[in-house]
This record gives sequence, C-alpha cells and structure tokens, in this order.
Amino acid sequence: MVMHDASFQFTLTATDTNTGARAGVFHTPHGEIATPMFMPVGTQATVKALDPDDLRTLDARIILSNTYHLALRPGPEIIAAAGGLHGFMAWDRPILTDSGGFQVFSLGAQRTVDDNGVTFRSVHDGSLHRFTPERVIEIEEMLGADVIMPLDECIALPATNDDLRRALDRTHRWLERAVVAKRRADQALFGIVQGGTDLALRRAGAEFVAALDLPGNAIGGLSVGESKDVMYDTLAATTPFLPTAKPRYLMGVGSPEDLWEGVARGVDLFDCVLPARVARHGSLYTPEGRVSIRNARFREQLSPVDSTCDCTTCRRFSAAYLHHLHRTEELLWFRLATIHNLSFILREMRTMRAAILDGSFADRRAAFHADYHPASATAAAANRVQYRDHKRSKTP
Amino acid sequence: MVMHDASFQFTLTATDTNTGARAGVFHTPHGEIATPMFMPVGTQATVKALDPDDLRTLDARIILSNTYHLALRPGPEIIAAAGGLHGFMAWDRPILTDSGGFQVFSLGAQRTVDDNGVTFRSVHDGSLHRFTPERVIEIEEMLGADVIMPLDECIALPATNDDLRRALDRTHRWLERAVVAKRRADQALFGIVQGGTDLALRRAGAEFVAALDLPGNAIGGLSVGESKDVMYDTLAATTPFLPTAKPRYLMGVGSPEDLWEGVARGVDLFDCVLPARVARHGSLYTPEGRVSIRNARFREQLSPVDSTCDCTTCRRFSAAYLHHLHRTEELLWFRLATIHNLSFILREMRTMRAAILDGSFADRRAAFHADYHPASATAAAANRVQYRDHKRSKTP
Repeated sequence: MVMHDASFQFTLTATDTNTGARAGVFHTPHGEIATPMFMPVGTQATVKALDPDDLRTLDARIILSNTYHLALRPGPEIIAAAGGLHGFMAWDRPILTDSGGFQVFSLGAQRTVDDNGVTFRSVHDGSLHRFTPERVIEIEEMLGADVIMPLDECIALPATNDDLRRALDRTHRWLERAVVAKRRADQALFGIVQGGTDLALRRAGAEFVAALDLPGNAIGGLSVGESKDVMYDTLAATTPFLPTAKPRYLMGVGSPEDLWEGVARGVDLFDCVLPARVARHGSLYTPEGRVSIRNARFREQLSPVDSTCDCTTCRRFSAAYLHHLHRTEELLWFRLATIHNLSFILREMRTMRAAILDGSFADRRAAFHADYHPASATAAAANRVQYRDHKRSKTP
Repeated sequence: MVMHDASFQFTLTATDTNTGARAGVFHTPHGEIATPMFMPVGTQATVKALDPDDLRTLDARIILSNTYHLALRPGPEIIAAAGGLHGFMAWDRPILTDSGGFQVFSLGAQRTVDDNGVTFRSVHDGSLHRFTPERVIEIEEMLGADVIMPLDECIALPATNDDLRRALDRTHRWLERAVVAKRRADQALFGIVQGGTDLALRRAGAEFVAALDLPGNAIGGLSVGESKDVMYDTLAATTPFLPTAKPRYLMGVGSPEDLWEGVARGVDLFDCVLPARVARHGSLYTPEGRVSIRNARFREQLSPVDSTCDCTTCRRFSAAYLHHLHRTEELLWFRLATIHNLSFILREMRTMRAAILDGSFADRRAAFHADYHPASATAAAANRVQYRDHKRSKTP
C-alpha cells in the first residue's frame, strides 16, 4: 500500500494568471525542490562526465536514474548494500528512478510483452530478465530513490487507436499493481499518463491517475517523434485533468523551448538527456540558440562562448580553449561542455520560477522566444533519433 | 642570449647521506617547486580528464606540456594571444614545455632530419612543418612556459655507437643554437643529456651541458625499451657529472619504483604519462602495486580501492562504484582514476622529500620496495609500447 508521507508535500507557491505556469516546492526525504525544475539524467548512477560536486556547483536539486540500466549493471543488490543510490553515487539530494519501461520496449525483437509484464534479453550478456509491475517496484525499493516510477507500456507512434487504448489499459492495470506492491514510506510513487496523441485517451489517462491520489503524476510518451505543435496541444489537453495540488512531471522533455512551453502548460518537473548529449557532441546553448564549438569563428575567440554565462566553464575558459579541447578530442571537453549546458538549462528554470513569482512569466517567455532560435526541425528530429539510439548504446 | 633570472634559483635544502637523493626548492616566475617532484603531463594544454582545480586539489606544483602538439593544434599564435599557456588553460602555477623532439622523431618515415633540424608532416592534415633549434625556442617563447626544453635528436635503441655519437653531437650543436636564440628572461632553458646506454657518451653529454651553466639539466633517451637495471646504471653514471646546484630532470620516467630509484640517484624532477594513462585503462596504484579495477573482487567492495588513500576519489567512492563506472564505460571513470593515480604519485614524492629531510630516505625506500610489487616486465614492456603508440594516437 502507498503510505502518504508528509515528506512528499507539494506546496503551490504561485500560479501565473496568463498561462498555466506554476511555482511550487516539492518536499522529499533528501530535501526540497523548488519548481519548475529540470532533472539532469544519471542513467547509470552518474550524470555523464560530472561528479556530485559538479552537480552541487550547478545547484542541481534532483537527478534522475534508470531502473532498467541499474538492474542489469551493477544489479540492485550491490546498490542496496551501498546504502542505495544515494550512498553508491555519493549524492545526498533527491533522486528519481524511471522504471526503464521506455528502454525495455525500445528493445524490439529482444523483448516480449504480456499482461503481466515484459521479458527481455540483456544487451550486455544475452541473459533473460523479466520486469513485472511488482518486480520493478521491488528493484526501485532496493535503489532507494525519493521518487519512483511504475512500469508502463510505451508503444511506438504512429499507432492505431485500438493499440493505444490497449496499452493505456495495461499501463493502468500495472499502475494499480505497483500501488499495491509498494512498501517503503520514504519513497513517492508517481502515476504516468500515456495515450499517445489521442486527446480523449490522454484525458482518460489523466483522470485515471488523478483518482488514485498519488503524490505526483507524470506525462509519458511525448517527444518521441511527433511535431512540437502536436506535443504542446497534447500537453495542454492533459494537465487540466491532473490534480493541481500534486507535482506534474513531463518525461524525457528538455530542449529550452520545450521547457518554457511545458511550464506554460502547467508542468513542474522535466528530465532529458538532450542538454548533456548535445554538449558531448559539440553543441552549446546560448541565449540566441545552440552553437557548434566546431565553428571556425571560435578558433580565435578569447572570450567565453556565452558572455552572459556565469558557469564554471565560461568563467574560466575561452571559446578558443573549448574549441581546441573539442578538436583534439580531449576528455575535459565532455565535462566543461556538460557543465555549461546544464547550467544554462537550470538557469532558465530559475528564471521561469522568478518570473512566475513576480508576474512576468508571459513577458519573459516572449522574450526568450524572441532571442532563442531553436535547432531546426531537421536537427531536432535527428536529435530525437540519436537520443533513442543513445539510450541503447554505450558510447558517450 | 640566456639571461639568468633570479627567479630560477635552485636551493638545495638537504642531501641524503646514504644515497644521491636531494631535497630542494626550485624558484620560477609562477611559484616555487619543492623537489623531488613529479610533473603531470598536459600534452595538449590539458592534463587528460582533469581541470586546473583538480590539479590544485592534488597539489600539483608544475605540469608539462608539449611544443610539438601545440604547434600543430591550436598553433602558438592563439596561445600567445590568450596570454600564453597559463592564460589559455587557466593554470597559474609553473609549466614546462618539452620540445616534442621525441614525438617528431617517432614519426619515422614521415620526417627527415638534417644538421639544421627536422622536417615533418602533420599527422592531422599532412601539412609540412619544420623544426629548427631556433624555431622551437621561438614557439616556446610564444607558449610562455616557465621552463623550456631545446630540440634534441632522439634515436631509436638499440643503435650503433657511431649513430649515438653523431646524434649526441647534433644535440649539442642544437643546444648551443637554442642558447643563442633564446630571448625571454622569464623562461629557463634546460640542457638535455643524450647518449643512449653508452656510459662514456652519457658522461660526455653531462659534462657538455654542465659547462653551459644552464639553470637546469635534463636526462633524455631513457625508459625507451632498455631494462630497468640498465636504465638505473646509466642514470647513476650520468648524474654525478651534472651540477649539484642545478635541478636535474629525468624525462619521461614515472613508474613508482622508477621514481624512488631516480631520486636515489640524484634526480629532482620527473614527468610521465604512465600514471594517468594506466588509470584511463583501468589500473590503479596501491601501496602493494597496481590493481585492475576490472577484477571481480572489486564488484562488491564497498570500501575504497586503497583504504590508505586520502584523494578525493577514495574519500568519496567505493571500489564497487569505480568498478561499475569502468564496466559501463562512463566518462567519470577517467577523471576519478586519474585523480587517484596522480594523487598516489604526488604523495610518494612528498614522502620521499620528507624522508630526505629527516634522514630516513634509505629506510623508506626499502619499505616501499618491500610492499610494492611492480608491474611485471612483460606488462611494463607492453606499457612502453602503448605509451609510444599513444603519443601518436588521438584516443584517450
């Protein structure tokens, strides 16, 4: 049974009068999270290229890790023996574990799904594994994150309405079983709304999880290939049916423009590998948009890439130095670039929160869009494909 | 002309009565260096996987960079415009630049040598470059390191006595030309002793550089394939002919056992990529010898790899976590492992210095060898081959 712990109170501090944007505070056993907030992704118990001190310097408040990956390597028993994920990776602030359902369903022919769960082969050694709603909760209780996500069925888009409805029903049955299986009072189980881009199914999904009165709710299955307009419309048709008094988490979304638009539609929490992944591949965020460090103009630029940035990368190093590190394939590039991009994203979140509190959110949102040129639709689509591939690959 | 700057005074603090070991202080424009000291290698203006704060936390006092690599990428003009290497890489402590002669001569068919210098093609774009003794000094004056090394001729061993003698003569002529070419008073040019494993040539080389009365002297061309006994004997036949009042630098040497034996034979400064390179490949130093993090015993070890170590890796992370990072090929591995191995080496240097000062050097040296099991001769030979290959490759 879910035991509702006072630790997981969500205090709504302010609601924007012009949009759905909200500012709040989410209380967890490992500290408070001022929302809206972005969660850096540490799939394998490490935010790629960063250590916990880097994350504290960035003022990251909560990070995400992945049950599927950790179940395979190093296995939940070792992490439990180390005092859970917090002890294992030496991070004492909040953690959220995704179930890894998205990754398992991405395995394609390497997995079979039935009403009780999904059976799959390890990509590492071919060993057979089975995830049921109960087993995922059991593993997540061994990992000990503050927020845990249930197993859900993620189907590829486009899909028929029948397939979407069947996956949604199964997701709901699995959520009910997860609720029953859950034992630890110091962890919060969030519900997940699926339903593809079918607005009626999204509403049904939102109403279903709302009725369960869980400490938080998530929206999954977006940013998986649909256009931005469709994603925004689907989001706008979902959040109104989720409880106002509980945090709302949009899974796997994290480009700067999507964060602003998600917050405008009432989302409180986000995660995405994108900011760190594009950093590793050479792209850095600036208030005008993403720039490639490979660009020849940076070769001799002795000022920082982003002169408005106060991150430890921009405070210390010129664009010319970063260009050199990337060109020579030096390891330090990965860390400095990741620090810059996560710093940019977390600063945007703080900007949004301050704007919600002082009533300027709509103006700041317009100002952001006036300055910021998103990556082209082509580049964005390529990123999504790389993003999915990356989740299955071992390369940085 | 060389201008002898008071900045480069070398103060001999203590000399061990039982061995040739010395403790001193080498003054440079960017700070004092207590010797004996090991210099981490930052070939491309970055100590691989570390940032300047990491180096300060390690209490690294001087680092080495490479003229050959920096001349090709990013080019000396950009570094000069950034305020020299110190400004470019944001490191305000002393730097030594090697000429990169070793790397150029390693190019084999891609280079031709004559009495005036060496002509070679860039491994990156095939462009033609020429290093003369004067050009190397000119580049090093643009890089602005505290200590600069002259172009020397490094020939492969085994070599005939005639070839060794011809290379030694050429090295001496080039050094004389470097002395004449040098302009900056805030840089110290060291001489280099070559001569292979011919003890008479080594003595001649040492006497030649001693006569030039430079602010420091180096011993090159060792640890390139000869046995450890031969290396130690060659060293012992060289240092007695170098000035006592000037620092002595053994180039490219840095296994723990070689550092103790080098210090015992009167060496003050060392550099080597080995500690950081073996770290990246999975080997960590302990007082008993190198261990592989891949070893299954570390999979569930919740204590640090080295319980005696106070580095920021061992203070924060278990062996099980490091094993996991290495197994999952996570970027954080490279940084944490490099921190540990450089911390080990720099602590050994501090231990040696303290022992020289309190008269216990011989005892501590014996205690080190009693505990420490060097990598096998086979492994050591393989490391040397990898080391040479690595200098030409781009992979970490």
